[in-house]
Amino acid sequence: MTPENITAAQLRGRIRAAEWRKPTSGAARGFVQANLVMLPQQEAFDFLLFCVRNPKPCPILDVLEAGVYEPKIAPGADLRQDLPLYRIYRNGKLTEEVEAVTDTFSKDMVSFLLGCSFSFENALQSAGIPVRNITEGKNVSMYITKRACTPAGPFSAPLVVSMRPMTPEQAVRAVQITTRFHLTHGAPVHIGDPSQIGIEDIDRPDFGHPVAIEPGEVPVFWACGVTSTLAATSTSLPLVITHAPGHMFVSDLKDEDMTLF
Amino acid sequence: MTPENITAAQLRGRIRAAEWRKPTSGAARGFVQANLVMLPQQEAFDFLLFCVRNPKPCPILDVLEAGVYEPKIAPGADLRQDLPLYRIYRNGKLTEEVEAVTDTFSKDMVSFLLGCSFSFENALQSAGIPVRNITEGKNVSMYITKRACTPAGPFSAPLVVSMRPMTPEQAVRAVQITTRFHLTHGAPVHIGDPSQIGIEDIDRPDFGHPVAIEPGEVPVFWACGVTSTLAATSTSLPLVITHAPGHMFVSDLKDEDMTLF
Repeated sequence: MTPENITAAQLRGRIRAAEWRKPTSGAARGFVQANLVMLPQQEAFDFLLFCVRNPKPCPILDVLEAGVYEPKIAPGADLRQDLPLYRIYRNGKLTEEVEAVTDTFSKDMVSFLLGCSFSFENALQSAGIPVRNITEGKNVSMYITKRACTPAGPFSAPLVVSMRPMTPEQAVRAVQITTRFHLTHGAPVHIGDPSQIGIEDIDRPDFGHPVAIEPGEVPVFWACGVTSTLAATSTSLPLVITHAPGHMFVSDLKDEDMTLF
Repeated sequence: MTPENITAAQLRGRIRAAEWRKPTSGAARGFVQANLVMLPQQEAFDFLLFCVRNPKPCPILDVLEAGVYEPKIAPGADLRQDLPLYRIYRNGKLTEEVEAVTDTFSKDMVSFLLGCSFSFENALQSAGIPVRNITEGKNVSMYITKRACTPAGPFSAPLVVSMRPMTPEQAVRAVQITTRFHLTHGAPVHIGDPSQIGIEDIDRPDFGHPVAIEPGEVPVFWACGVTSTLAATSTSLPLVITHAPGHMFVSDLKDEDMTLF
């Protein structure tokens, strides 16, 4: 069995047994992967409000009551140890990357699982639209835009976008396909001229890697889950835990469960 | 100008001036109307979580920080006095119906505005599908089902549905049309046999009025915003304020702003 063909539960089992310590991209294909944010109960209402007010970058898949680490979207899973790599922020600064947060997570912390673009990338590929970052074997290009998210309480962030180049005809089809996936960022937020959303140099992404844009192609931009990490660390909380980039939580939901129609 | 053709701001002005004290159904047509729930900040996270976990009955249009009464979806409006009639619940019991809550609303209360079915009823009518409760001049038939919403903290409720009878062909078209309106209850939750969702007698709705079901018609059921009132009053909070049935908040959003595609 290739990593692509195992189930989400099998992948989580390998992660918990310390047999899988790399990014989850391409693994357990067809299962929905998620961004993780854990923060103190005291700020949970404002952060949930931030997500509700900014549903394209921060689509909510699951939110757990304080102290709970078994998500409804993956019964039996443990959010404290079933991701391959975590980041811990203390007083707003990244202080550690660790392989489990069992001792760091506490009863007064609330966990948020937010949609990620892997789901719609599968759907694009199934529709015959090549996804450049996958064909080039790179992490998707991500950019901090000049568009501000709607703030909530102490949380604010610029909108972060991911970019995939394609022909205009493919872009039209990509709009249709990703519209169905409203819980994994939905339709694009921009097509074409990067400068219109404040991107100075398309060849120098703020996160991830640059990819080739071929003649006749336009850059297509989707809201990106990295926005949620910027928001969670935009105010100096004593403790915030997130997944490490690319090291996502793999849920039992299937991509098609996420579609609106 | 008929009440149907005034703007939302004009209607709110009449309400605030005590010139409009009746239900808002059919007024300021094309503007999005909303269910209102106000409750203590202490319970706001759990109630927001209830709405997030039950998006079909409780689609979130706007949530305001504690003490704020001017919604983002209607700048200049005042949620404390711009609805024609309010209900006040104390310790879980309905105690008063009042025309303003300016003195009752306090700095530690959070306001929730949730989508209502008036938006998609306009769309159904525009598509040539007659809406029986409107043609009969009645309040829509609503039923408490045996389906439980996903609880959150102390909040729980059965799913409440509204019912509109139509032909099977119209039902197919109604599914397509209301799917677009995911923030105003979206696609139906059930079509056909009422007993499958725990409705004993279709001619005896739990709220609203019964309507005629003609030969060849099937009942079509949508999630209903009354669910949010049942949830907000499912635990004995010291103070909860809601709109009175049919006396909604009329926002500046237009119905078409609510569509996903």
